[in-house]
This record gives sequence, structure tokens and C-alpha cells, in this order.
Amino acid sequence: MLTLHGYWRSSAAYRVRIALNLKGLSYDQVTYDLRQKAEKASDYAALNPQKLVPALQTETGAILTQSLAILEWLEEAHPEPALLPENPIHRAHIRAMAAAVACDIHPVNNLRILNALRGEFNASDDQVNQWVTRWISDGFDAIEHLIGGGDFCYGDAPTLADCCLVPQVYNAQRFKVDLSPWPKIRAVAEACDGVPAFYVARPELQPDADK
Amino acid sequence: MLTLHGYWRSSAAYRVRIALNLKGLSYDQVTYDLRQKAEKASDYAALNPQKLVPALQTETGAILTQSLAILEWLEEAHPEPALLPENPIHRAHIRAMAAAVACDIHPVNNLRILNALRGEFNASDDQVNQWVTRWISDGFDAIEHLIGGGDFCYGDAPTLADCCLVPQVYNAQRFKVDLSPWPKIRAVAEACDGVPAFYVARPELQPDADK
Repeated sequence: MLTLHGYWRSSAAYRVRIALNLKGLSYDQVTYDLRQKAEKASDYAALNPQKLVPALQTETGAILTQSLAILEWLEEAHPEPALLPENPIHRAHIRAMAAAVACDIHPVNNLRILNALRGEFNASDDQVNQWVTRWISDGFDAIEHLIGGGDFCYGDAPTLADCCLVPQVYNAQRFKVDLSPWPKIRAVAEACDGVPAFYVARPELQPDADK
Repeated sequence: MLTLHGYWRSSAAYRVRIALNLKGLSYDQVTYDLRQKAEKASDYAALNPQKLVPALQTETGAILTQSLAILEWLEEAHPEPALLPENPIHRAHIRAMAAAVACDIHPVNNLRILNALRGEFNASDDQVNQWVTRWISDGFDAIEHLIGGGDFCYGDAPTLADCCLVPQVYNAQRFKVDLSPWPKIRAVAEACDGVPAFYVARPELQPDADK
């Protein structure tokens, strides 16, 4: 059995849940309340020295960290259904969309950074919201150009790009970012909403979600 | 011929230069002075709507963006010498180190973020330096645990992890971060310095570098 160490609201864990569901793999979940810094405790640090969620424990007991690395491992170890096509150029375009989320939007907007803005620069709620909106907007402007034809980010089946984009759209909605400038992104998010693998990965449906 | 659109001091472009050199591929370079926001101009935006460097133009004219996606493409399109081993678990560990740099350290410390801290929060030079040092320290603490035996990040040959770590060490030195807490990282950086593919990729040796 696979075990996902995560948190309902971690968007990096959300990416992995989607991919696990798309692959049809069952998994246990262990949760760490990021608001309580539970991921910094010694038991989790022993498992993942980076003290960030998610981590995936494989069937053989290996601990994999970093959501992009976990997604690539899932694709290699459990190739069906494929979340990357065969053609290397197409694979590169899909990975670029995934990285636009995972490298350019999410890291600058996650909880540790927003806490640092508040703690070190006395950022107000308004300033935090503007900060979040700015980087989401820059990134979504780019991704809107990168989305190809078809129902999903790249073609007519979900790929690693959709696994990353959907949690970022969830975050944008949480911060009340107006999504009207990005009709392609909204259409992809809607298409994904109709796929059970995406739907059951939603944060509010996880066992550790706030009730 | 491959063409790399980059900038001498962009650490994401530096990653790609290292990988191109390790693969023994020759390439042209087109430079965009990030201090002048040259990457935001319309000619580059037409090429890469994300308006970030690097982008790699392939032999067939395709434009690839996002350094991690470009590194994976290089590995698939030009498999020798391999920068990832065969074993999926080992590949995942290497990609996790690459992502620790590319997702958790570099994005929160790059020029656009430091400019935003200065512009929106009146961050002083001292505060900017503390910000940079904090995220490098957190990330390097984790990577120090992840580095395996051998001369490089993972074993006795360079991998994608080294392509990402070396530019981050360069950045840390530029910001005068004391590297003494991370002896494994320092040893890997020294080993890489002895490999011509890494050495000739150094920012100060690029044609567009400040003289």
C-alpha cells in the first residue's frame, strides 16, 4: 500500500492525490496540520528532512519527496494511464506548464512565505492578497498561452499539467482571485471537475479537512 | 543548432548550460538583460509568453521553456551521457534534490521577488539579504541530508541534481551566505568545479557577462 504524508489544504499534496487517483492507486493518508507546524516535528523530519509535505511512502518503503518528483515516479512506476504522451516535445510542453505552477506561482505564495511577509514586513491582509494575486496573475497569463486545444491542458486526456493546474486554481479561488481573464484555464478546471479522480482529491473532501 | 535564450546571471539558464555542456551539445546564446527587463519585450514574449528566461530553441525550431522541463527534454532527446540513472526510485531522489532547489529555494529569491520586496515593503538591503539567506539555509539543510555517497549529489557522475545545485551555490556565494554548515554541498560543488562542463557554464565566463 502507498502512504501519502500530506495535508488537506497543501496544494502540492493535492497534485499527488489527483495523480494517484488518475492512476487508480489506493493509498493511506497521514496528515500534518501545517497551521500547527506539525510537519516540523521530529517524527516527520526523520521521514523527510526537508520538513515539507507531501512525501509518498512506496510499496517497498522508500520515501519520495517533492511533488514534481513524486508525479514523475508515479508515471514511471505505474505507467497506465499515461499522464505524459510519448513525444518528447509534447512532454516538454506539459512539464513546462506543470513547472509554471510548481516553480513560479506556488512557491512564492505558500504559507511559509505569506507568514514571512507578515512576520518580517508587517504585511497587512490586503498586502498579502495583492502579493498572492500578482504572482497568480503573472503565471496564469503565461499558462493561458500555453494551453493547447482539447478539453485539458494538453489534448483530450489529463496530464501532469492538469494535476498541477487544478490545485492552483483552487488556491486562486480561495484568495478570491477573479478568474475571468483566463477563459482557457477556467475551461480546463471545469473539465477536470467532471473527472472523478480530480473531484475526490478536492481538499474539502479529505478526512483531515476542517468541518 | 540549439539556441539558448538566457542571461549570464540567471541561475535557471545556468542549469541548462551545464546540462548542454554535459551532453556535449553545442548551442548559440541569445541574451536578455534582466536588469533592463529585456525579457519582457515583445520579441521575446512572442517566443516565450511566460517572459522568463531560459528558453531553448531545438534543432527543429520548437521553443521549450522552464528549466526543469528543458533538462528533462535534454535527457530524453539526447540520452548520452545519462543525467538520470535507470532505477525509478533513484531518479525520484535526484529529481527531489533538483526540485528542492528549483521549487523551494530559487523562486523565492530571484530578482523579481527581491524587487517586489523592495518596492512593496521597502525592504532594506539587510532585510533582502536575510530573506535570501533564510530560504537558502532551509533548502540547503534539507539537501545536505539528501546527498548520497559519491563525489556528486547522487553517486559518482553528475545528474540533474548537480545541474541545479551548482547554480544555487553560486547564488549563495554571491549573497555571501556562509556555506560552512553544509560540508556535503561544498564537496559536491568542488567536485563539479573540476568538471569542464560545469566550469565553462559559469556566469562570469559567458559572452554577455559584465566585464
